[in-house]
Amino acid sequence: MSDERRRGGSKSLKRRSSHKQQSRSEFDFIDLIKSRALKSQRITRSPNSSLITHHSSLLQGIGDDAAVIRQSRGNDLVVTSDLLIEDIDFRLEWTTPQLLGHKALAVSLSDIAAMGATPRYALLSIGIPTNIWKTNFIDELYDGFFALADAHNVALIGGDVSRSPKHVVIDSIVIGEVKRGHAILRSGAKPGDHIFVTGSLGGAAAGLKLLESGVRISHQNPRSHRARAEQRLLIRQLLPEPRVAWGTLLSEERLATGMIDVSDGLSSDLTHLCKESGVGARIQLSLVPMDPNIMHFRKSDFDHVSMALNGGEDFELLFTVNPRNLRRLPLRLRNGRATYIGDITRGSTDIAIDGLLSRPLTSAGFKHF
Amino acid sequence: MSDERRRGGSKSLKRRSSHKQQSRSEFDFIDLIKSRALKSQRITRSPNSSLITHHSSLLQGIGDDAAVIRQSRGNDLVVTSDLLIEDIDFRLEWTTPQLLGHKALAVSLSDIAAMGATPRYALLSIGIPTNIWKTNFIDELYDGFFALADAHNVALIGGDVSRSPKHVVIDSIVIGEVKRGHAILRSGAKPGDHIFVTGSLGGAAAGLKLLESGVRISHQNPRSHRARAEQRLLIRQLLPEPRVAWGTLLSEERLATGMIDVSDGLSSDLTHLCKESGVGARIQLSLVPMDPNIMHFRKSDFDHVSMALNGGEDFELLFTVNPRNLRRLPLRLRNGRATYIGDITRGSTDIAIDGLLSRPLTSAGFKHF
Repeated sequence: MSDERRRGGSKSLKRRSSHKQQSRSEFDFIDLIKSRALKSQRITRSPNSSLITHHSSLLQGIGDDAAVIRQSRGNDLVVTSDLLIEDIDFRLEWTTPQLLGHKALAVSLSDIAAMGATPRYALLSIGIPTNIWKTNFIDELYDGFFALADAHNVALIGGDVSRSPKHVVIDSIVIGEVKRGHAILRSGAKPGDHIFVTGSLGGAAAGLKLLESGVRISHQNPRSHRARAEQRLLIRQLLPEPRVAWGTLLSEERLATGMIDVSDGLSSDLTHLCKESGVGARIQLSLVPMDPNIMHFRKSDFDHVSMALNGGEDFELLFTVNPRNLRRLPLRLRNGRATYIGDITRGSTDIAIDGLLSRPLTSAGFKHF
Repeated sequence: MSDERRRGGSKSLKRRSSHKQQSRSEFDFIDLIKSRALKSQRITRSPNSSLITHHSSLLQGIGDDAAVIRQSRGNDLVVTSDLLIEDIDFRLEWTTPQLLGHKALAVSLSDIAAMGATPRYALLSIGIPTNIWKTNFIDELYDGFFALADAHNVALIGGDVSRSPKHVVIDSIVIGEVKRGHAILRSGAKPGDHIFVTGSLGGAAAGLKLLESGVRISHQNPRSHRARAEQRLLIRQLLPEPRVAWGTLLSEERLATGMIDVSDGLSSDLTHLCKESGVGARIQLSLVPMDPNIMHFRKSDFDHVSMALNGGEDFELLFTVNPRNLRRLPLRLRNGRATYIGDITRGSTDIAIDGLLSRPLTSAGFKHF
């Protein structure tokens, strides 16, 4: 499964979904399906099942940000799909159709970036209730979609339009390309590698909290520092910017050994990366780049540390670098910096965090079930 | 958009969606998005936007059964996505999770077949309410999915799992391969070409009508001819068999000039093909292969002719053949025959039907809006 990120659910829904009594999380299920899919792929392919002689082969399937298909010739292809469902992943009263169209594409571009690939093509499947179909909603949604697609030279090549009985449903599929063998998997991190994260963390989760407390996107100029910070945090939640330039650079220069996008939250996504790589990690809390806009709020408003460690949907890239390549790593691109936050360690996916109190880090990001 | 087919909606929903007062159908909207997408693709791509030198290019986007991506080297790729939404495209009380998993993949395999391509990879995005998540529903759905995927050597490589507030939602994405330049588009039919259809028509629509009237899949051996016919028609609706072998053969032998799958209904899909090819058609009603199981029912049960002409979801292939290639066309493969039903004519998408009464054929297949 390309990703298990989750966005913008309501408080109560989120709370329900993180209850421990749920017998099986979606991560457990994805592991199950992964082993089923691998079993299927081992079934001997009949040599005369097709006359196509140069057929492509599968390099990496379920369990990374996107699947990698190795072509017999030319570049490898990378494919991802992300399902956004109204009242789970977004609320119509919190966003606009344009912002939603942008975000639907952005989450998939982020998956492609997390493989070090360059996005090329998109498909968009939309289910929409009749009353919304009669408005300009879908036109404006495509406005937001195309604005981001054009900025990244991504061509819309297909999809589906269906009626939906109640909720808006969007499945965003993106296909990217990467030089043969250059895809950056979750499984490549090695003990001793340095851990970096692009941009800053916690802003999207803080934005979600503001939406839940009734703050809305405003087209007026905000008057106070706090009002400006609020609007910036809402933008982090509603209009995420995928780190495509970073992803492309890291694969082209072969700078990253492992990579994942921060969609579920740093604690969960670093755990995914460590699990796939069979390593542990130690991060320094004081080095984690917290979204500066969070600082305008009191700790009674937000738990700053928890936002940065467990807040999802920042769509930053978390990647690991072999120390001998550090000199070649730029620390700033046009669309943002990358920050060193700790190191990969030996050991079985244990993540230690040094800070106010040194303690093991447990995954506390978003889960659906 | 890959496809505009529709299946299994309730009577009242279907009736509502075919009302003429709806200002814009999904077909109108898809035309609009197609022109928007083409405009975007004309935006000059910056030569240094990526260091990838051999990037692929788009051959055919929105407006066919699937999009074709021309790779710089090797085979062309074909991609489609199909969204199935509970209570619009299926009803849980009419089907089983296994049948649903089969059908979700089958509809996309049919799109790939309609391009003459061989399916290779699938992604499945699923939204599922919490109460259903706690059952075996999703495991059984994947059972049905993998049974069909294994039969066609299709590898599941990704997807997404999300919670849904009320309805089950499935987006099925399939990627296929076809020899460079061999994809069979809707736009290739020429005046004088003969029109063929695989298998038989009307069975899936009759099966839907039976479901609506309360008939259900039974695991007992049906006792009467009529009961057997009922079960066969339910199977046509709930367990469609995509004509993958036909699609592959037609492209490899370069036998078809144009092709589409019969998902919305013969009248609508032949209209789509004629529109894309800029041609007309004349078909003989007496030649249209009606599902033989329909004959067990009185005309007061079903309008046989309307079922065959307008009933959707048979997932047969409708294709056109240049007369000089007729000798090379096999009329039967292991998984079914192909039947000559008429000819492509000059003229602007006018379709004439010769039969009981000679009259122009109007699209009367399923629309969402």
